[in-house]
Amino acid sequence: MEHRKLELLTDFYEITMANGYLVNGMADTIAYFDLFFRKIPDEGGFAIFAGLDQLIDYLQNLHFTSEDIKFLRGKNMFDPRFIDYMEHLQFSCDVWSVPEGMPIFPQEPVLTVRGPVIQAQFIETMALLCINHQSLIATKANRICRAAKGRKVMEFGSRRAQGFDGAVLGARAAYIGGCVGTACTVCEQDFGIPALGTMAHSWIQLFDDELAAFRAYAKEYPENCTLLVDTYNTLKSGVPNAIRAFQEEIVPRGYRPGAIRIDSGDIAYLSRKARKVLDEAGFPDCSIVASNSLDEYLIREMLEQGAQVDLFGVGERLITSSSDPVFGGVYKLAAVEDKGRIVPKIKLSENVGKITTPGFKEVWRLYENETGKAIADVVTLHDEVISSEEPYVLFDPEFTWKSKTVSDFTAKPIRQLIFEGGKLVYSRPDVHQIRTFCQQQVETLWDEVKRFENPHTYYVDLSKSLWEEKQLMLAKYKR
Amino acid sequence: MEHRKLELLTDFYEITMANGYLVNGMADTIAYFDLFFRKIPDEGGFAIFAGLDQLIDYLQNLHFTSEDIKFLRGKNMFDPRFIDYMEHLQFSCDVWSVPEGMPIFPQEPVLTVRGPVIQAQFIETMALLCINHQSLIATKANRICRAAKGRKVMEFGSRRAQGFDGAVLGARAAYIGGCVGTACTVCEQDFGIPALGTMAHSWIQLFDDELAAFRAYAKEYPENCTLLVDTYNTLKSGVPNAIRAFQEEIVPRGYRPGAIRIDSGDIAYLSRKARKVLDEAGFPDCSIVASNSLDEYLIREMLEQGAQVDLFGVGERLITSSSDPVFGGVYKLAAVEDKGRIVPKIKLSENVGKITTPGFKEVWRLYENETGKAIADVVTLHDEVISSEEPYVLFDPEFTWKSKTVSDFTAKPIRQLIFEGGKLVYSRPDVHQIRTFCQQQVETLWDEVKRFENPHTYYVDLSKSLWEEKQLMLAKYKR
Repeated sequence: MEHRKLELLTDFYEITMANGYLVNGMADTIAYFDLFFRKIPDEGGFAIFAGLDQLIDYLQNLHFTSEDIKFLRGKNMFDPRFIDYMEHLQFSCDVWSVPEGMPIFPQEPVLTVRGPVIQAQFIETMALLCINHQSLIATKANRICRAAKGRKVMEFGSRRAQGFDGAVLGARAAYIGGCVGTACTVCEQDFGIPALGTMAHSWIQLFDDELAAFRAYAKEYPENCTLLVDTYNTLKSGVPNAIRAFQEEIVPRGYRPGAIRIDSGDIAYLSRKARKVLDEAGFPDCSIVASNSLDEYLIREMLEQGAQVDLFGVGERLITSSSDPVFGGVYKLAAVEDKGRIVPKIKLSENVGKITTPGFKEVWRLYENETGKAIADVVTLHDEVISSEEPYVLFDPEFTWKSKTVSDFTAKPIRQLIFEGGKLVYSRPDVHQIRTFCQQQVETLWDEVKRFENPHTYYVDLSKSLWEEKQLMLAKYKR
Repeated sequence: MEHRKLELLTDFYEITMANGYLVNGMADTIAYFDLFFRKIPDEGGFAIFAGLDQLIDYLQNLHFTSEDIKFLRGKNMFDPRFIDYMEHLQFSCDVWSVPEGMPIFPQEPVLTVRGPVIQAQFIETMALLCINHQSLIATKANRICRAAKGRKVMEFGSRRAQGFDGAVLGARAAYIGGCVGTACTVCEQDFGIPALGTMAHSWIQLFDDELAAFRAYAKEYPENCTLLVDTYNTLKSGVPNAIRAFQEEIVPRGYRPGAIRIDSGDIAYLSRKARKVLDEAGFPDCSIVASNSLDEYLIREMLEQGAQVDLFGVGERLITSSSDPVFGGVYKLAAVEDKGRIVPKIKLSENVGKITTPGFKEVWRLYENETGKAIADVVTLHDEVISSEEPYVLFDPEFTWKSKTVSDFTAKPIRQLIFEGGKLVYSRPDVHQIRTFCQQQVETLWDEVKRFENPHTYYVDLSKSLWEEKQLMLAKYKR
């Protein structure tokens, strides 16, 4: 994949602040920033974390070109020492993150950056952009794939994506979330994600009639031949012509028919009828592909109505997550170091849900030993350890009288060290491994959390020590 | 701006079809494809056309690298003659398009491609991707700017954009639609769009107190100094501290205060109170900037409630067009040439609105001479001329008894020739010229069309000749 120069894809205030930190003597101040989100898209029970690999690419190659430096200098508002700092920038932060494909929940720091405040602040825009975009699409794709209940889902949305990366990295995120492939060719070239596709209506229109178009296609692509059957009339013309093309051009050459695709009309009805006709023609192994503005809600309803669909092609509503197209990750200062001591920082707000949790933290996930299911996440101080050997008291950080003692569990920190002093120390899984990991991790969630309507709110609690530290700071500010 | 290799950012079916056309002897078949859309986002009265410049970049540089060719060959499903064709591809199509910034309406071909069917088909995905994305954002930005009634609107959404281009080209489209600038720095570097921004809450938190943070910032940036006043308490702490910093660090050095920014709370209430306090402090020229999940609906309501805001910073709801995040442009075969004769093609559908208008066409806009306002668009056969010298009968293509004779108008074709035989023949305006053109053209629309609720449906009619041709084809297919 070609390398992108994205250093100045940043909110301008990251630069004014970075320059300001330097001239105010904070060049060496070590700061901690947490990336977390507050609301799960589509009122779902969890989100899928994605986009880390692109953020790693960015951080690994972070440096300013001479044109970038010329641009900054040309603004006539930055200190020469700052220009010099940026010109010779060596990324030197530590970064912890949950791996891609992991189910994540609101209010937990899924990614933390520790390093010189100039740098840790500067990368805010790109960190959010990478994680927000791909987590949005991976989360949506996972919803759609779960609605399809084991049937395959393909990503078809490039033409309606919000920009080139919206298409390409969106397809990557959709694959992580569970899609089996994409229509976007470059994703196969760049990531090895299977790219598939057969014909548009224009193919049919360019031949004298539908049968001629099908025959020509079947002749050229006898393997996995998929024919689009709804150009004129799905049941009266499309399916019979497809069967004839299969019989005349596919079967005699030793192949089996691939699929028919229905792109309009009442798919629940048409697919049932088409299935019957295909079975009667001796093609029970011929798949039925459905497309046309689908999403998890329509797919669920179609299946409830007995739709006979083997593969769903999902376009615009997946690639833009159209029912909820924003993933609201934020990036907040959590602490600074003062002579090696970590000083927690809190951001207040009149909206209680927007008050941040201060300090340098770790995130643990507790899995029930008997079932392997995830019970809760606990955010702790970075040096706390949750022992799996003894019972643990979970309590609601807002309504502290709500508590629960759990035992017979295994506690694991869910974040890994990605960069140490600016050096990549993480072995990056490929997109297939991430997809498998995602499936395994979604399996650890109870059905109640996976429900589409009013899912159970998964516990994200604070450890007692962290909760107390937060209360102390709140009390201090109240005074 | 760096050049992107986007040749394989295409739906795989464009390639299978292109190869299929070649092996079926259609390498030299000349086809006409129309790009049009069916539904205006947010139930608005018009859309703004954008994204052409990126499509031009793509078409001008269209060629396949040796890796691309290796990839295609490696699929083992394409004819060697096709691989050879793609390896030596010379874009040779004609392209007509409305210019960027133009208000456009459903069902009219805003862009037409004429050329060898292999090429004209192949570029479908990218043509749609470029135009759909930027037209979506330009349209949304124009709505938001109109809601702001002359107050400035800045694009602030990079961190929530759907991918890198979603941020950068989204900011470009937002500028075309009427925004005065963006927070996205690279847009200034690449397009000369003003990039602005000052501080996040983290800046305030990194200092011992709010006043110290404001003073430090004002000292470093005395010109146009904007201070974020809602970290602790907007009215009790933020505004008074901002005034003190202005008085102590800005005014004595001969500057005037720039602005305060309010990013949370009830902006209608807070801005009125803040305005009063700023005025009393002798700073009636200090602007008030508001941000925090704004869109056209919130802005309109805030202004109705007397909000005293001079500049709106609009983020996620603009950069994703979150209330309607898909622009549904389509690309349909309209005609082929047979021995130099244009043979119209029609796509049928049980949904009447999805039946295409066949043939090679032109789009005219009729402007009333007295007011300069746009009366209607008329789609004609490509060689028809609408004379401004004589009365013209408009009629509804669906309910033909609804007709209206107009006179004293000027009729202009709204599309221009962009590529001729693959050669760029269009002089590309810069983004500032496009933005100005957009403002001028939106001025030509009646207020009824610009209304947010139930806008008047602008007429897009067919000429008598075109209407008759379409009816003939429909009748033929009915038989």
